[in-house]
Amino acid sequence: MEELPGLAPTVPEGVDTPTAWIELDRVEANIARLQGFADERGVALRPHAKTHKSVEVAQRQRTTGAVGLTVGTLGEAEVFAGAGFDDLFLAYTLWAGGAKGARLRGLHEAVRIAVGIDSGEGARALSDAVRGSRTLPVLVEVDSGGRRTGVQPQRAGELGRAAQDAGLEVLGVFTHGGHAYRGAEAVADAADDEVRSLETAAAALRAEGIEPRVLSAGSTPTARSSARAPVTEERPGTYVYNDRNQVLVGSCGVEDVALFVAATVVSVSLDGQFVIDAGAKALARDPGLGGAPGYASLPAWPDAVVERLNDYHGMVSVPAGSPRPRVGEVLAVMPNHVCPVVDLHETLLVVRDGRVVDRWRTEARSRSG
Amino acid sequence: MEELPGLAPTVPEGVDTPTAWIELDRVEANIARLQGFADERGVALRPHAKTHKSVEVAQRQRTTGAVGLTVGTLGEAEVFAGAGFDDLFLAYTLWAGGAKGARLRGLHEAVRIAVGIDSGEGARALSDAVRGSRTLPVLVEVDSGGRRTGVQPQRAGELGRAAQDAGLEVLGVFTHGGHAYRGAEAVADAADDEVRSLETAAAALRAEGIEPRVLSAGSTPTARSSARAPVTEERPGTYVYNDRNQVLVGSCGVEDVALFVAATVVSVSLDGQFVIDAGAKALARDPGLGGAPGYASLPAWPDAVVERLNDYHGMVSVPAGSPRPRVGEVLAVMPNHVCPVVDLHETLLVVRDGRVVDRWRTEARSRSG
Repeated sequence: MEELPGLAPTVPEGVDTPTAWIELDRVEANIARLQGFADERGVALRPHAKTHKSVEVAQRQRTTGAVGLTVGTLGEAEVFAGAGFDDLFLAYTLWAGGAKGARLRGLHEAVRIAVGIDSGEGARALSDAVRGSRTLPVLVEVDSGGRRTGVQPQRAGELGRAAQDAGLEVLGVFTHGGHAYRGAEAVADAADDEVRSLETAAAALRAEGIEPRVLSAGSTPTARSSARAPVTEERPGTYVYNDRNQVLVGSCGVEDVALFVAATVVSVSLDGQFVIDAGAKALARDPGLGGAPGYASLPAWPDAVVERLNDYHGMVSVPAGSPRPRVGEVLAVMPNHVCPVVDLHETLLVVRDGRVVDRWRTEARSRSG
Repeated sequence: MEELPGLAPTVPEGVDTPTAWIELDRVEANIARLQGFADERGVALRPHAKTHKSVEVAQRQRTTGAVGLTVGTLGEAEVFAGAGFDDLFLAYTLWAGGAKGARLRGLHEAVRIAVGIDSGEGARALSDAVRGSRTLPVLVEVDSGGRRTGVQPQRAGELGRAAQDAGLEVLGVFTHGGHAYRGAEAVADAADDEVRSLETAAAALRAEGIEPRVLSAGSTPTARSSARAPVTEERPGTYVYNDRNQVLVGSCGVEDVALFVAATVVSVSLDGQFVIDAGAKALARDPGLGGAPGYASLPAWPDAVVERLNDYHGMVSVPAGSPRPRVGEVLAVMPNHVCPVVDLHETLLVVRDGRVVDRWRTEARSRSG
C-alpha cells in the first residue's frame, strides 16, 4: 500500500490546465504486458473500453492480440462499431424493452455483439428487440461476491434455459469480481471467487444441456490470478492507464500509472494547504481504496493530500511546516480512479519522452447509456 | 433534513436512460423567486453559470434581472462571451502566467471581465497578461471561513494596494461561504461570516485609499441571509436547479428541485437491492450533506438509498421485505449535487407539464479550465 515518491512524471511544457495526459511508453507497455500474460495462459483478452473510450487505444489493444472489446453501454458499442470494431461484448444487463431496443437491433445487424442477462424478463426483452433478425448471443451474468448484478452461479442453468427458450443463443457466463476493490488483501479471494462461480455456473448450464463456450472474468486487480482454466476470457479495463487505486490495491506499480492531470497552483493564501485548479470536474470524486485519504496524489509532493474538491478547486493539505509549491507552479496529479476522469476530458495529450506527440479524442466519452 | 415523498416528478414518456431533464416551470420559478428577493433587498444578482452551463438558462436569468454572470473558469467565460454575455466575473484566482494569459487578454479585449485575486504574484501575472490593453478590473478574494481560497479579510487592503500598484483596477472584494455546506445548522453563521468578512475587507481597502464598489457574497444556501448591507451582490449558482443537498441544507424545498436523471432498473437479481443504469458517470459521486447516506435519492421510492455507484451501475438498497420496482421500470433520480451532474450530460431534456418541449445543450460543459 506504499506510495513511492521519486517517480513523478515530467509535466509537458506549456500545457494549459487542467489537462489530462498519457505517457505513451507506459500505455504500450501496459497493453503488451497483460496481453503477453494472457497469451501465455491461453486465455483470451477482451479489454473493457470504458476506461479509455479511445479508438486509438482500442486499435493498439487489437493489434497486440485482443480478441475484441468489452463495452459497458450501447453508446460505447455504437462508437466502437462505427470505428470498425466488429466483435463486441456488452457486459451489462441491458434492458431492451424501451428506447434501447431499436439501437440494439441496429448494432446487432451491423456487427457481432453479445449482451449480458441476469433475468428472464431482460432476456425476453432482448429477444423481442431482435425478432426477425438473426439470433442474438447472450452471456449469463453471475454474482461472484461483488453484489452488483448477476444471478447466483447455481441459478445460471435455469436462466440459460429461459434465454434459449426465448430464442437467444447462450454463449456462456461472465462475472466481475468487483469485491477485489475492498483492498489489496481481498484480491486473491475475489479472483478465486470469479473462477469458482464461473465453474459452478458452467456446470449448471451443462445440466440444462447448454455447453458454455465462454467463461469470462473481469477486473484489473483479478485479471492475472483468475486467468486459469476453466476461465476462457478476461475483461480488464483500467490496466491500460492504471491509477492510484490500482497502486493501492497492488495490481500495478506506481511506475505503471500512465495517466496524469496537469494542474496549476492557484492559491497558497491559507496555512497548511495550497489549491490547484483541478477540482471535481477534472479529477472526479472517487475515494481512495482501503481508506487512503484524499481524491488524488501528487507524485512530486508525496506528503501532500488532495483533501477536498470543489468544482474547480482542489484543496491540498500539507503537514505543518512543510514546503509548498508556489502560485503558478504546474504539477502532475495522479487520480484515484481513472475511468471517470477520462470521461471528463474531451481529449488526452499523448506524451513520449516528455514531449507532446499527439492529442487523442475520447470518442466514446459521455456515452453513458 | 426530512425528505418528503409524494412529490415525485413524472418521468417523461419514452425517454432513453440515463438522461437528465429539467422541469421548466420549476426552473423559471427558481429564477424569478431569487431575483425578486434580490430586487427587494436592493442587492445585485450575478448568478454562477457553472451550475447550468447553458446559454438558454443564462438568457432567462438576464431577462429576469441578473446584472451579469459569474463564471468559474476561462473556458466558461469564453462560451458565454461568445453567446453575447458581456459582463462577466471570473470568481477565481486565475493564474495568468502560463497558457491562460493570452486567453484572458482575448476575452478582456472583447467583453467586460473582472477576475479574482488572492496573491500579489497572481495579480502581477494578470497585469502582465493585459499589458498594453485597457485596465483589468479585479476583486480581492477573502476567506470567510470556508478555507478554500482568499486572504484573511484584514489583509485585503495590502493585496488591493499591490494590485493597484501593478496597474489593475480594484473593483471590490468577494467571498464564498462554502462552510454553509457543513449542514443546515451552519448556514446562518456562514452568511454572517460572509457579511462580516466583506465589511472588514472593505474597511481594509478604504484604509489604503481604495473605495470598493462591489462587495460580493456567494452561495445558494447563504444567498438570502447575506443579501443585506453592506453586501452589494450575490453569486448563487445551484438555486436555478437545486438538488438533494440543497434540500438537506434547508435552502429549498423538495418541490423546488428542477433537475432529475431518468434511470432504468436493469437488475433485481440480489435480495435487498435493485440496480439502475445511472452510475458515477451519470450522477457523480458527491456525498450527501450532513452524513445523509447515498449518492442520490429516488423520490418515488423514499426508503431506497442509492448506496454504491460504479461507472454505469447504481446499486440501490431497500429495507428487507420492502417492495422493489421491476426490471425495465424507469425512475426519477434526484442527485446529491447538481453541478457535476450537468457537466456529465451534453444536453438536458426540457419538460413542461410532463411533456418534452425542448432539448438544451450545456454549451459550457467540460470547460473546466
